[in-house]
Amino acid sequence: MMCGQMRKEDIGKEITLNGWVQKERNLGPIIFIDLRDTTGISQVVFRKENDEDVFKEAEKLRSEFVVAVRGIVEERESKNPNIETGDVELNVKSIEILDEANTPPIYIKDDDNASEQMRLKYRYLDLRKKSLQDNLKLRARTAAVIRDFLNSENFIEVETPVLTNPTPEGARDYLVPSRVNKNSFYALPQSPQQLKQMLMVAGMDRYYQIVKCFRDEDLRANRQPEFTQVDIEMSFVDIEDIIAINERLIQRIFKEIKGIDLKLPLPRMSYNDAMSRFGVDKPDLRFAIELKDLNEVFKDVDFDLFKDKTIKGIAVGESEKEFSRKHIDKLTSFVKEHGANGLFWIRIKNNEISSSIKKFLTEEHIDKLKEIFDLKDNALIFIVADKKEVTETSLGALRNEVAESLGLRDKNKYALTWIVDFPMFEYSEEDGRYVSKHHPFTHPVDEDIKFLETDPEKVRAYAYDIVINGDELGGGSIRINNSELQSKIFKALKLTDEEIERKFGYFIEALSYGTPPHGGIAFGFDRLIMLLAGTNNIKDVIAFPKTQSATCLLTGAPSKVTDDQLEELHIKNVF
Amino acid sequence: MMCGQMRKEDIGKEITLNGWVQKERNLGPIIFIDLRDTTGISQVVFRKENDEDVFKEAEKLRSEFVVAVRGIVEERESKNPNIETGDVELNVKSIEILDEANTPPIYIKDDDNASEQMRLKYRYLDLRKKSLQDNLKLRARTAAVIRDFLNSENFIEVETPVLTNPTPEGARDYLVPSRVNKNSFYALPQSPQQLKQMLMVAGMDRYYQIVKCFRDEDLRANRQPEFTQVDIEMSFVDIEDIIAINERLIQRIFKEIKGIDLKLPLPRMSYNDAMSRFGVDKPDLRFAIELKDLNEVFKDVDFDLFKDKTIKGIAVGESEKEFSRKHIDKLTSFVKEHGANGLFWIRIKNNEISSSIKKFLTEEHIDKLKEIFDLKDNALIFIVADKKEVTETSLGALRNEVAESLGLRDKNKYALTWIVDFPMFEYSEEDGRYVSKHHPFTHPVDEDIKFLETDPEKVRAYAYDIVINGDELGGGSIRINNSELQSKIFKALKLTDEEIERKFGYFIEALSYGTPPHGGIAFGFDRLIMLLAGTNNIKDVIAFPKTQSATCLLTGAPSKVTDDQLEELHIKNVF
Repeated sequence: MMCGQMRKEDIGKEITLNGWVQKERNLGPIIFIDLRDTTGISQVVFRKENDEDVFKEAEKLRSEFVVAVRGIVEERESKNPNIETGDVELNVKSIEILDEANTPPIYIKDDDNASEQMRLKYRYLDLRKKSLQDNLKLRARTAAVIRDFLNSENFIEVETPVLTNPTPEGARDYLVPSRVNKNSFYALPQSPQQLKQMLMVAGMDRYYQIVKCFRDEDLRANRQPEFTQVDIEMSFVDIEDIIAINERLIQRIFKEIKGIDLKLPLPRMSYNDAMSRFGVDKPDLRFAIELKDLNEVFKDVDFDLFKDKTIKGIAVGESEKEFSRKHIDKLTSFVKEHGANGLFWIRIKNNEISSSIKKFLTEEHIDKLKEIFDLKDNALIFIVADKKEVTETSLGALRNEVAESLGLRDKNKYALTWIVDFPMFEYSEEDGRYVSKHHPFTHPVDEDIKFLETDPEKVRAYAYDIVINGDELGGGSIRINNSELQSKIFKALKLTDEEIERKFGYFIEALSYGTPPHGGIAFGFDRLIMLLAGTNNIKDVIAFPKTQSATCLLTGAPSKVTDDQLEELHIKNVF
Repeated sequence: MMCGQMRKEDIGKEITLNGWVQKERNLGPIIFIDLRDTTGISQVVFRKENDEDVFKEAEKLRSEFVVAVRGIVEERESKNPNIETGDVELNVKSIEILDEANTPPIYIKDDDNASEQMRLKYRYLDLRKKSLQDNLKLRARTAAVIRDFLNSENFIEVETPVLTNPTPEGARDYLVPSRVNKNSFYALPQSPQQLKQMLMVAGMDRYYQIVKCFRDEDLRANRQPEFTQVDIEMSFVDIEDIIAINERLIQRIFKEIKGIDLKLPLPRMSYNDAMSRFGVDKPDLRFAIELKDLNEVFKDVDFDLFKDKTIKGIAVGESEKEFSRKHIDKLTSFVKEHGANGLFWIRIKNNEISSSIKKFLTEEHIDKLKEIFDLKDNALIFIVADKKEVTETSLGALRNEVAESLGLRDKNKYALTWIVDFPMFEYSEEDGRYVSKHHPFTHPVDEDIKFLETDPEKVRAYAYDIVINGDELGGGSIRINNSELQSKIFKALKLTDEEIERKFGYFIEALSYGTPPHGGIAFGFDRLIMLLAGTNNIKDVIAFPKTQSATCLLTGAPSKVTDDQLEELHIKNVF
């Protein structure tokens, strides 16, 4: 029997429990042990009067000793309603100490207050905590739900290689020097994008894989050098087919894992709408705050900082919580970090107006603002006036920030939406050319193909993201299934013929032997588990995570190797 | 509807089929197309009299064009009993050519006779073949069966990192230079051995993972640089528990995938038995031939080449097939390649004796041989006299070789056995010391621990392999769960204190905080699929395999990278 399974119905049975000593209390003639395994905790009792030898063994027990105990299940005198085994205890007849334990450097409880460094170094102790074990179990269960669903829909799980070719036009690759092929390198995949398309060219029809992907980027919070992706691709489909089946997948996950019934179809929003109403392409729709266009309101105001700017604002209710001047100063710094030249504010409180731009404000302005923001109560309006993109993105970030302060980002609420009608390209100041918004295999909207050479900014893509609570959970697109169109896209991206041939030659050739219309999606699996587990820390959902500097504090990876090893790989260190 | 699904019951229905043109026959006023997708083939008919425009489109069709056709299911005039859709055909009303196709460089049929090089370069065309698609589907289905079984037995699938630390005491690692941690390297895992043990230390109780592993070894046939492993570990178990649950897993796989009922428990054989009776620790038990000890028989023979040697032999029946002198010469070379100094043979045919050692043979010898080999019919006896190990292993190899010639290795027969009681160590001439037979985390048999320092060759291990048809399908062991015993093993392997600390310091410390008895197993998943698919070529069960020189002919991996990329990684090429 497992430690979490002992119940009233077992009273009188003789059973064996294996586990770790969570806590021991020696009351002289009687010793109580809380015995723990992955299923829970049982109370285990040693009575001196029963058997002195067994009792002597029990006296040796300390925290985290591993034991097997055999005895009779009995009713507890003082029941513990907080644990499922709290009605009963094990009256021990025999004990075997399976392994002794040194005093662990961190406590095995959720609120141990150990530093993250200690927790990662002693990950095998940290993972003894129920919360982390529960997360790993949730992760495994979610993977099983996904596989069950996709298997039942005739998707074939296919493994693609980890040792593959560098990703052209992608983020930075992890490289693996080849020993056999001198001065050549494999790359770890950033995603199996090209190979899953090859499976469609091969006629595999429906593919999926829960697969490790890799990006050698500077790690921000909640990024890991390796991450897990639910990778899906289908043939003979359009956007509607892909959205429909993936909605059902998401619905199944929420039902099985959280017991939540999601109503289908999920809402959809165009990219332009998302940007103009929420200032971001992954809006958090758990709260209603929206960006409003204020150029019309302030068109008569002669204010340098408003001149030729896109003026937008958000309004937040202040009935319960009021933003202090200090807080507003912080928010001003916040939007400046997001590129805005400043933050203006207007407070309406019991019909009194205070504002950073009070001298420009007329009653008419206030009336119009009240109308636009549909204000009935006290409110605080934040305004940014800048270039359109800066105004929107900085206000979009501010929108999330103030919602956080107001407690509007409820962890137990899930607001999902598809974002569609993405632009095909975005202009990269850095590269001085248009680059793909998604990736160069994305199919342009048919009626926009004519703009490819003349007005690339007008071209929309058959691309879609699924957004939950302000996080992009997944994204995908219909792919190009025609080699000529694929070449055209590379040319629109200003790749030379030589570059196209070198980087994508095999891929374009592959498309030329009869390629079905196809498309797919990839979900960020770690992020999905974070969402389902209700944690903001990616390390909580990965068994052996790495630090921000991409090291494993448990094993010490990465580490030094010998010169002989490098010589075999035809490389040497540069110091 | 899919191309393989159209049936008599569908007659009269209007349906759409999507697929590739497998074959087109233009008979003037009528065009027949075999339309193919992953489920099968349907006959599709265009009649000029129906619709001239549609017919004109159909006239453009060539092999591997991708089309969508809509029409009415009708009964076929001349039925094709060879395919499941052979009773019906689709009378087409409309057609859309979804993608045209250049003439493919290899034929899309199983017996295309294309070179392996062409098949790998155009893998996306090779994968259009039914046999390869069936293998990938079998692979996916087998993975699903394994996951279902293990999930139902409360195993938790946990992902371990791909970017990890070099494996001490293992094969050659693939290394990944770290950009952030200058002159340091990750290694790709050869197996998640240490980390799955960490999960047991963490109390996760039952772990599994279907996981990619990596070894940078010179590739023999049927080896790939990356391979897939079914990795399993359990706590609070002994050998019997692990064998029992894994037998049930194997039984389930054979039942679900092959429809074969395996009888449990599976046979077991000790390592010593396997070596002495079959000359190998992975005996093929589909045929009964056994090595017999012949020293007693020939004890009176004064023959230099028998002196102080271990003399063993095998006997093969020759009722139907006779081994020619030329064939015997080949087999002599064969055993010499396996280290033996020669091969002696005795032929008994209609009571006539011919032999390479005829001058030493008496009637008594022949009588004794007949008794030992239980000969009733014509037979050929092969004898090797050499050092014990050489005699056994060369005869073991010969045993498989002659069984192959005699057609005794039936692909549709499955003979399974566990091999147990492995020695803990084997002496490495190369290293001048004992090395681990399995790996250094293997638990020695309790009553042999006393020999660790004095007679390491006497120490047996709690290790086990599962062998099918002469292939090792998996292996594992009970692990050491005590830090002191673990240190002792490293010392028996002649590691210095410094080496132990540097290579295994964290691991030994981890064992010191209370470690449950635990053990596990790892199955070679690629090999399992080969066995179930009945193929001898590992490339047949992997979507994108690499060549013997570890290159991908499709993508060109590995490939050159820029000096800038290497500089970022603090390495440079050595030419």
